[in-house]
Amino acid sequence: MPQPQFHSTAPSPRAHQPRTLAASLATMIDQQVTISGWLMTRRDLGAVSFLVVRDRSGTAQVVVESEGLREKLAGLQVESVVAIHGRVVAEPRARGGAELHARDIDILAQVSEPLPFELNRKTLAPSLDIWLDRAPLALRHESKRAALEITAALVDGYRSALRQRGFVEIFTPKIVGSATEGGANVFPVAYFGRDAYLAQSPQLYKQIMVGVHERVFEVGPVFRAEPHATTRHLNEYISLDLEMGFIQDHRDVMALIAELLREMLAAIGERAGAALETLGVTLPAVGDIPIVGFSEAQEIILREFGEDARGEPDLAPQHERWLGEWARREHNSEWIFVEGYPTAKRPFYTMPNPEAPAASNSFDLLFRGLELITGGQREHRYNRLVETMEARQIDPAPFVGYLDAFRFGMPPEGGCAIGLERFVAQLVGAANVREITAFPRDINRLTP
Amino acid sequence: MPQPQFHSTAPSPRAHQPRTLAASLATMIDQQVTISGWLMTRRDLGAVSFLVVRDRSGTAQVVVESEGLREKLAGLQVESVVAIHGRVVAEPRARGGAELHARDIDILAQVSEPLPFELNRKTLAPSLDIWLDRAPLALRHESKRAALEITAALVDGYRSALRQRGFVEIFTPKIVGSATEGGANVFPVAYFGRDAYLAQSPQLYKQIMVGVHERVFEVGPVFRAEPHATTRHLNEYISLDLEMGFIQDHRDVMALIAELLREMLAAIGERAGAALETLGVTLPAVGDIPIVGFSEAQEIILREFGEDARGEPDLAPQHERWLGEWARREHNSEWIFVEGYPTAKRPFYTMPNPEAPAASNSFDLLFRGLELITGGQREHRYNRLVETMEARQIDPAPFVGYLDAFRFGMPPEGGCAIGLERFVAQLVGAANVREITAFPRDINRLTP
Repeated sequence: MPQPQFHSTAPSPRAHQPRTLAASLATMIDQQVTISGWLMTRRDLGAVSFLVVRDRSGTAQVVVESEGLREKLAGLQVESVVAIHGRVVAEPRARGGAELHARDIDILAQVSEPLPFELNRKTLAPSLDIWLDRAPLALRHESKRAALEITAALVDGYRSALRQRGFVEIFTPKIVGSATEGGANVFPVAYFGRDAYLAQSPQLYKQIMVGVHERVFEVGPVFRAEPHATTRHLNEYISLDLEMGFIQDHRDVMALIAELLREMLAAIGERAGAALETLGVTLPAVGDIPIVGFSEAQEIILREFGEDARGEPDLAPQHERWLGEWARREHNSEWIFVEGYPTAKRPFYTMPNPEAPAASNSFDLLFRGLELITGGQREHRYNRLVETMEARQIDPAPFVGYLDAFRFGMPPEGGCAIGLERFVAQLVGAANVREITAFPRDINRLTP
Repeated sequence: MPQPQFHSTAPSPRAHQPRTLAASLATMIDQQVTISGWLMTRRDLGAVSFLVVRDRSGTAQVVVESEGLREKLAGLQVESVVAIHGRVVAEPRARGGAELHARDIDILAQVSEPLPFELNRKTLAPSLDIWLDRAPLALRHESKRAALEITAALVDGYRSALRQRGFVEIFTPKIVGSATEGGANVFPVAYFGRDAYLAQSPQLYKQIMVGVHERVFEVGPVFRAEPHATTRHLNEYISLDLEMGFIQDHRDVMALIAELLREMLAAIGERAGAALETLGVTLPAVGDIPIVGFSEAQEIILREFGEDARGEPDLAPQHERWLGEWARREHNSEWIFVEGYPTAKRPFYTMPNPEAPAASNSFDLLFRGLELITGGQREHRYNRLVETMEARQIDPAPFVGYLDAFRFGMPPEGGCAIGLERFVAQLVGAANVREITAFPRDINRLTP
């Protein structure tokens, strides 16, 4: 029997040519290096070809003079993947002050047809629907990559800020036995012959988990079967949820949000600075965020914008835009909290204002006139929760587990949910949330 | 018209009694403080009551001597939520060396019935099914909380390690238009009258995103409609995915995994040290992980354990246990890689070994004899990918977007997926993955 030859993950003497990233070229003048990436452009000027190669760090200019190498490049379409071996030469006119003079080229993946649209222009030209249909390609455009890098940095900043405050990350199920937020707008799932649904939010689970960890957060997909396509809704999106116990009321959650926003934006500045530059985005300041009551908001709309919405149970998108305008003008703030929405229009778990129970201890945060965050204090008193469900004729059977958490001791608590894609879209000034979502899902779109 | 009173998130003079965490008591001897938490036990000894109160930091002993306060406590069941105001007193016999002498008690949530099982014992007594049915309560047990804290630390360590290596976090859709990994075992979703499914993995999307960011990772739910309930499977679980471009072959992914495991375990040690102690868990070392080829593995099984599995296309769970045993004995390693699984048994996107294409550049990592990670190099050559799909009679229509990514230039790439719950279960020695999952989903369980 042959004795098996022993291998392990110990560093091996395999001839691994170390790869240099484009952004590091300037630090390696006169050295022999290999860069690898996608061929973005090729220009032939007389007996010399100039290439631009893109990798995850940026782009590099490559000079090809050898006749043999230039023949190798013939017929190679852009987005082909190449490894280029050569010498780094100082060149003040090249980006970063250096370029690579090619000695040899390996073709790692040959593209043999032209792209359906150009990726190497400042702006991605085709219409949104074409981008989205060809997302695997369109996402390579620098504007798309930049938005996704900002998204990742924002989420990372969210988690760090919460962990520092003792929040524990949780993972709650996305397949649920009943609609969490009321019966409409859920996607049914065929679950081994039983009725199941996709979770509209982790709301009930994150509240349960306050009983376990006091402070919890989750970053995960939520699913809303709303049968309309607007520029600010997706049927599947990422929700940044948090929930915290031992609060006095919803104002504690609002104060936390102001701190979080500062740290999330700072994280973007630190970790996605180049992406911000690519998109020409300046991060908004977060000072003390003004807070107006729901009825005050309606008074402001009447007084400042002439529309009498008093008595209406909610704010319309136009009302939110006006409030955003007012906040910018009067308080020099891109942000404004509206608190005290009518209790009757909020979900059963909402805590009524103890002094005026027709209003609730709930809030929305508007960012540049668009609802970005919804939150509030929750009803933590078991008997009141049961009474409210009875008054609203909600069948308690699917909520047995949820109610258990309150029956066996829950502190005053509250939380909020932030729509990730909407936040990024507002931040970078995208008119449609689909512009900054890698693979959006809506009533018309299920692929790619 | 009344001028609205101006509020903002600026720190307000609200009389917010600062809360002290149980773990900080020892640093506040002789001070007046307030602690808040859940009442874990109450013992009455003559004219004195001793309480243990739990908060997110740990537990505190409270001494109640006042007759009035003791009356207030009468009828208060454990898990009631209380705020206790009093003076911190040094007490060597108390945990942490300090206890609180109560001056006043606020009852934040009164529990008025006994718990269905005891939470304040070292071990949670009832059977797994009872825990799971009463998860909102059972998860408060220290052993459960500890496992969830370890889970959070592990995920956090995973993300940090990858970010440091230039990986970008991605968010890919969970509702998909077709089965990603072959037709069986998907959950259908009713999607606006169209056929849709829950994603079995982010496999195809993460590969597409290598074309965008080169190195990507995702932490998210995956859904497998496998109609059986074993101790190591869930129908919804969290998958830690990564994918990276510009590799030489699958060995680069394996080398990365060894580094990642070290950093993930270190993160648990740093951030969940108390949880490890609660569970009596010692973190395993990750040295150089032995690698055996698939046929070598079958030879070892025959030679060392006497079962002739040569020629079988996969390893059975018993084979994996034996290999784990062998790795511990021969290489003093809790980990072992098996590489080179038969190409025919691996998904269509698997890269064959260029020197012996019946074997593939794929691997599994076994941890203590259980498959924990599956990964490999992928086929990045567009023509080969199309040929393989044809040979396997896979309809290319649902894969148009995926194929686009390869048609327009993809470097050699590979990646892997780690089952989060399974990792934690093996780490803490749980016999069933449900023991460490907050709200598991399986063929019998859809609630809570």
